[in-house]
Amino acid sequence: MKIVFVGAGNLAVHLSKTLQNTGFEVVQVYSRTEASAKELAMLLQLPYTSEIERIIVNASLYIICVKDDAIASVIENLPLTDGLVIHTSGSVPMDIFSGKFPNYGVLYPLQTFSKSRQVDFSEIPVFLEANSSDNLQILRKVAETISRKVYEASSAERLKLHLAAVFGCNFVNHLFHLSAQIAKQAGFEFGVLTPLILETANKAVVSGNPKEVQTGPAVRNDQGVMRKHIELLVSYPEWQEIYAMLSESIGKQTCWVSKTRQD
Amino acid sequence: MKIVFVGAGNLAVHLSKTLQNTGFEVVQVYSRTEASAKELAMLLQLPYTSEIERIIVNASLYIICVKDDAIASVIENLPLTDGLVIHTSGSVPMDIFSGKFPNYGVLYPLQTFSKSRQVDFSEIPVFLEANSSDNLQILRKVAETISRKVYEASSAERLKLHLAAVFGCNFVNHLFHLSAQIAKQAGFEFGVLTPLILETANKAVVSGNPKEVQTGPAVRNDQGVMRKHIELLVSYPEWQEIYAMLSESIGKQTCWVSKTRQD
Repeated sequence: MKIVFVGAGNLAVHLSKTLQNTGFEVVQVYSRTEASAKELAMLLQLPYTSEIERIIVNASLYIICVKDDAIASVIENLPLTDGLVIHTSGSVPMDIFSGKFPNYGVLYPLQTFSKSRQVDFSEIPVFLEANSSDNLQILRKVAETISRKVYEASSAERLKLHLAAVFGCNFVNHLFHLSAQIAKQAGFEFGVLTPLILETANKAVVSGNPKEVQTGPAVRNDQGVMRKHIELLVSYPEWQEIYAMLSESIGKQTCWVSKTRQD
Repeated sequence: MKIVFVGAGNLAVHLSKTLQNTGFEVVQVYSRTEASAKELAMLLQLPYTSEIERIIVNASLYIICVKDDAIASVIENLPLTDGLVIHTSGSVPMDIFSGKFPNYGVLYPLQTFSKSRQVDFSEIPVFLEANSSDNLQILRKVAETISRKVYEASSAERLKLHLAAVFGCNFVNHLFHLSAQIAKQAGFEFGVLTPLILETANKAVVSGNPKEVQTGPAVRNDQGVMRKHIELLVSYPEWQEIYAMLSESIGKQTCWVSKTRQD
């Protein structure tokens, strides 16, 4: 199976290397940024192009790994092909392909990728969608070669998963940043928080249900401590609002639990 | 050095075991809940009491490990002693002891504790405060025996660290819960999110600066995706507000970064 990578960012790097290592034949890399295309092509030792019209048309699989808001224009400019053309985005519906290609689909890996960090693809959940059961079978074969966790998900389901990832990854990372800023104001480096951060993630994962391991003043309804914390943030009204809103949300969740337990 | 534990919750369990294992002589456990006192005392093989007036008065160190809002009444009812009496809370100032005991202080471990999870105390940052340099020296000796990361922190600094922990642990865990709820609505279990959650924490920790590894629609200012996410949450106005507020906070941080970089 000949595979072309359209895009050379973090996901393209990890996915193309993994596919190559598991025996797939990656034949070409495209990126509109020549330096990126060249870098990935050198890593994989294969041809590259930064001109989209030079993408070869006789490959079996085209994997689009570009930013969400660039997918539409990439599809518009891709040469026509009978190959299976897929994107890898959580938030873009599959029908963005319809009318242009006969064979299309989506392969969405639920993970955050950085160039410098190794990832074990076999543990990454992968969500598939395709415009026919034949194409789904092809995608399933590819996905099951690289991951132990392969699921089907419609475009609507995938968007929800993407939203879940925003809460569980992007927003969480921002809270790490706010936490670091507050520790800094007490004169301490981010390093004093890292055992706590790692244990928080591990504990939630091992528990299998974060709600059951919730701790802190909000879940205990410790008004005195919450008032002191809000006062500390007097110069940061935006952080005060975040504090109040998340504490309220934790409190509501707790009341809701006690209520249903009483039923 | 004879040590008495006042309280038998998660922290008391981990701290007393660690101290015993490193050669300290824990001599008594108190909890107002007899079953808890007995359970920890059996684990450590030593006497216990659930009557506060029966706490022995000739120990060298009394470690109060009760909930923040119970510390004041425990101090009020503790028998008078010349020993060093400390609490372990982030949010309670040291002067809660003043006027009652001649020797007092605080030993605050920045970690989240659960009975069922092992913790490596040597990696846990511990923050000390005491009412005299002699007492600080005693605390430092104890703390340095169990942890490689011992710092001094005033009551004001400790409250800030506690607030940082609320953002980096309690609020983060709640976002894991919201993330799990959203994935559930797409028909998927929490398990599909766990590789993402672990990688998010590891990546932030390894980077040493969460701001630098921030990803997602808010930091890219991808208005289209953010609008779709907000629409998905139409039945959950509270989650919409959390989404909007955290996205705005991420956006502001980014603008601020670009601004200072231009200067």
